[in-house]
Amino acid sequence: MTIPAFSDDDRHFMRVALSLSKRGLGNVWPNPSVGCVLVSPQGTIVGRGFTKPGGRPHAERVALDEAAEMARNATAYVTLEPCSHFGVSPPCAAGLIEAGVKRVVSALEDPDDRVSGRGHDMLRDAGIIVDVGLCSDEARHINSGFLSRILSGRPTVTLKLASTMDGRSATKSGESKWITGSAAREQGHLLRANHDAILVGANTVLTDNPTLTCRIAGRYEQSPVRIILDRKGEVPLSTDMVTSAHNVPTWVVTTDALLREVSEKFTETDVKVLSARCDNDHFDLNDVMKRLGEQGLTRVLVESGGILAAGLVRDNLVDCIVHFSAPSIIGADGKAMIADLGFDRLSDISRFRRVSVRAVGEDIVTTYEKITDS
Amino acid sequence: MTIPAFSDDDRHFMRVALSLSKRGLGNVWPNPSVGCVLVSPQGTIVGRGFTKPGGRPHAERVALDEAAEMARNATAYVTLEPCSHFGVSPPCAAGLIEAGVKRVVSALEDPDDRVSGRGHDMLRDAGIIVDVGLCSDEARHINSGFLSRILSGRPTVTLKLASTMDGRSATKSGESKWITGSAAREQGHLLRANHDAILVGANTVLTDNPTLTCRIAGRYEQSPVRIILDRKGEVPLSTDMVTSAHNVPTWVVTTDALLREVSEKFTETDVKVLSARCDNDHFDLNDVMKRLGEQGLTRVLVESGGILAAGLVRDNLVDCIVHFSAPSIIGADGKAMIADLGFDRLSDISRFRRVSVRAVGEDIVTTYEKITDS
Repeated sequence: MTIPAFSDDDRHFMRVALSLSKRGLGNVWPNPSVGCVLVSPQGTIVGRGFTKPGGRPHAERVALDEAAEMARNATAYVTLEPCSHFGVSPPCAAGLIEAGVKRVVSALEDPDDRVSGRGHDMLRDAGIIVDVGLCSDEARHINSGFLSRILSGRPTVTLKLASTMDGRSATKSGESKWITGSAAREQGHLLRANHDAILVGANTVLTDNPTLTCRIAGRYEQSPVRIILDRKGEVPLSTDMVTSAHNVPTWVVTTDALLREVSEKFTETDVKVLSARCDNDHFDLNDVMKRLGEQGLTRVLVESGGILAAGLVRDNLVDCIVHFSAPSIIGADGKAMIADLGFDRLSDISRFRRVSVRAVGEDIVTTYEKITDS
Repeated sequence: MTIPAFSDDDRHFMRVALSLSKRGLGNVWPNPSVGCVLVSPQGTIVGRGFTKPGGRPHAERVALDEAAEMARNATAYVTLEPCSHFGVSPPCAAGLIEAGVKRVVSALEDPDDRVSGRGHDMLRDAGIIVDVGLCSDEARHINSGFLSRILSGRPTVTLKLASTMDGRSATKSGESKWITGSAAREQGHLLRANHDAILVGANTVLTDNPTLTCRIAGRYEQSPVRIILDRKGEVPLSTDMVTSAHNVPTWVVTTDALLREVSEKFTETDVKVLSARCDNDHFDLNDVMKRLGEQGLTRVLVESGGILAAGLVRDNLVDCIVHFSAPSIIGADGKAMIADLGFDRLSDISRFRRVSVRAVGEDIVTTYEKITDS
């Protein structure tokens, strides 16, 4: 596929659309989070949209409604191929045709089998100029969770870590509140808001009884699904996450063997119970992620202890790490933020690519991404 | 003491002098590293100097020699009070008087008993305007090693750490070359160049047999003294640092009890043997630092393993930390960069103040300083 030549204006408007697209992250699963900008022949933005909570209306519909008559002869910048299938609502491609847009600039083809080129074809068949591939890397990055679920059946995993400079997440007695400062913790809550779900192990629940909600003014409603990995079925009914499951969705993942028993235990609650494969007293984490993908999740934030974190690192399931590091030292007898990995040789250790580093209050936050061949 | 009002020009020229003063760090012990700028009545810099390797000539002498006749009626900006005592060379205060400078702006009084206000007095007695206290915090910071030795008898300690993001300095099998990238390692060598000495434990020598020289083009001559803490007198004569002691000074610190025995062992080498107090199989690290201060050292860089690092942290002897952190994970079974510290409560853990954080190649480097009450 040859990528058409794009102008600086094209690039600018697509970046506006990309920026809009980020605003839906965490609220639209299992849908992608799309941004759309409509630009008049005079070069004015006449419509703006991003996928709304729950996944509908789509970004194009929002932008078209805002533009109304001004959509005629406009150029539409969309961060993903407009849909072509009749689902809950008519397809966006049809909407763009009906509104009379002249040209559609799209960042990516949608790999979803129900779309996959058909949206672009439908537009072209209607005589609309369609240029595909502008800022495709950025678009792919923003929708990496959606793409991962479509292409490999699992959500992307962000591992959130908070530690002292020597990599300790608690003292030897288990005290961990708070290692990082309030600015870092607030940023941690924002991270929750743009993920579909938060994953922890049963140990974290038994030790800390966390609520794992998004405690930022106006964002509580964006609290993601809370998921507890509970291999032994030991999470008690009195746990805060269980008792508040009517307000914020709470799922418990147990083993296939314990599914019936654990389901019965939670039958009077709002907790949803799932299961995954378990081998030698360890969850098969690939299977856990596959099951979460089947539920529609595209972006999972892990806020676990060191054992689950190590398991995800070992199985190469960590797509992104957000590490908050405090200006303090606990020493080697504190709790390690990542448990044993068994590496003898430096050539074998887990490596990531640093994306950013910056100060946040008295702490620093560094983000890393999985190293891919591409 | 009231601080005179200084102009923006004063501040500018003092900053030039401060910048110059840094260039002597690591090469002038037991002397302070001073910067001096001479400015003509027209506002032109006519002389510049910093303390030369070995501590002589002093910054003022260098600047006066450069300015020659142009020093007449100039203003001298000095980062520390000019000396007033006749030592190896005539005092700088006399030199400034003789050259006919009109005004001296000084950042700090020299706490050295042989100076301590007498330099400023000598200048005033000769009719020179003397203004003291400009940029005193910066000046105090740059000469913190010199000031620490004068005021508390010990050098300042910089702890250099290199680890994965989870705080591991080696795999469980001990492999540590290299966790950080080449850019970080080069910066580590620059750090050596501005310290008087590098301190390691015997274990590091026995395990890694390091050379601890400053391997940067043109800086090898600035390799600091290499010091090995050897409680058991077990460092072999074949060690690289011992066999190269005629090129780069090498000291071994053993216990008072083993001093005679260890001195005899190294009698045919260029190694200098010192001793310090030892209690319950541990060096008294306060005493070690006092002994190093007695030898004239003002700035010590520690590149040890986790046990010595933990001892220095526990004894509150770490003034500065330079932490290189790699984008990789070894896991809890790797070697901890800081050994056990025994903290149960978060309120007791060691806390530092972050001074800077930035990217260096693929790694990040964060510097921290001791939290002081002032």
